[in-house]
Amino acid sequence: MPKLRVCSFSVSLDGHGAGPEQSLDNPLGVGGETLHEWVFPTRTFHKMSGRDGGRTGIDDDYAARGFAGIGAWIMGRNMFGPIRGEWADASWKGWWGDNPPYHCDAFVLTHHPRATIAMEGGTTFHFVTDGIHAALERAMRAANGRDVRLGGGVETIRQYLQAGLIDEMHLAVSPVFLGAGENLFAGLDLPKLGYRRTEHVSSPNATHVVLTKQG
Amino acid sequence: MPKLRVCSFSVSLDGHGAGPEQSLDNPLGVGGETLHEWVFPTRTFHKMSGRDGGRTGIDDDYAARGFAGIGAWIMGRNMFGPIRGEWADASWKGWWGDNPPYHCDAFVLTHHPRATIAMEGGTTFHFVTDGIHAALERAMRAANGRDVRLGGGVETIRQYLQAGLIDEMHLAVSPVFLGAGENLFAGLDLPKLGYRRTEHVSSPNATHVVLTKQG
Repeated sequence: MPKLRVCSFSVSLDGHGAGPEQSLDNPLGVGGETLHEWVFPTRTFHKMSGRDGGRTGIDDDYAARGFAGIGAWIMGRNMFGPIRGEWADASWKGWWGDNPPYHCDAFVLTHHPRATIAMEGGTTFHFVTDGIHAALERAMRAANGRDVRLGGGVETIRQYLQAGLIDEMHLAVSPVFLGAGENLFAGLDLPKLGYRRTEHVSSPNATHVVLTKQG
Repeated sequence: MPKLRVCSFSVSLDGHGAGPEQSLDNPLGVGGETLHEWVFPTRTFHKMSGRDGGRTGIDDDYAARGFAGIGAWIMGRNMFGPIRGEWADASWKGWWGDNPPYHCDAFVLTHHPRATIAMEGGTTFHFVTDGIHAALERAMRAANGRDVRLGGGVETIRQYLQAGLIDEMHLAVSPVFLGAGENLFAGLDLPKLGYRRTEHVSSPNATHVVLTKQG
């Protein structure tokens, strides 16, 4: 059975998955980039950014796993861009330039309809206005037997967790305290929602845990 | 300068320092004991419980450090016992039997006065009814140049953090999700309160971080 997976989602020790005040200048919120320091040196990240080299090891193993067997993506609108409300025009095409690192269908949750955008490298952004279940159905169909990766951000993951729709979630807990921002865990009882920790390993840069939905 | 230190304080990945529903049967709240699994196998914990053996290594190094150079303790009332409100009688003398593992003056924060109790092994419980600053002053005096260790629980540590009185805090982040309980971080902006992460090392059982008050 194909799965809905969260992969390489970074959180701080105080539970924040992004810093406060996301903007064009701070796509990850203020201080949010420190959450991701574990991934920048990895070979997988180098490859994603079109560079050679990069480190192998625990961090890279997890980073690489997040791209293996993925047939489609889902993301919240904040992950796609800083624009809120109606789409002013069609000029914003994501944070990633002409050739985004998805290379498959990517479904963006939004309340505001917009035409599909075909990008270079095989990424096609679809805009889904009828909710998280509809996005999952369309992504599963597009993935055609492969898994669907749920990117983020925090609010999107929380919605899918609360609906019990995520099958597997890999978190990379970074050794930083953000103090403020978007908290992944606040008011969320993961054990009660059926999630059990099934993996746990630490590198010098992050503690990796995998939560798996039971039953 | 002697310090106020939090040592070996265990929190879950979702930020809880104790499970919900603390009681006589569940002194650490439901599920709370899973937070402490990193410490049980250590030599320091074995020694504390009057047993030989136990493991050395990262976890033991941190556990041992929490007892080195300590001249007095402070703890909240919930750490001392499950009784709430007035002390019914003098029969409750803590969770630890006749010979508690403190072996020095231990100051218990409470709203309800009670006579000092001298225990075996050098532990003396004092009951402080005039607040966290007064408790710290009395503990510093009793420690006589050594450090004061702040035990817990969560609410007590949060009060001392918010007042900026903790100099150093070692957290052992256990790879568990409690889902509910007492959250150490909720609404607390540690960077803004002047705390910076100064150490970070992981064992297979816990991620150890030390936060140090700046300035």
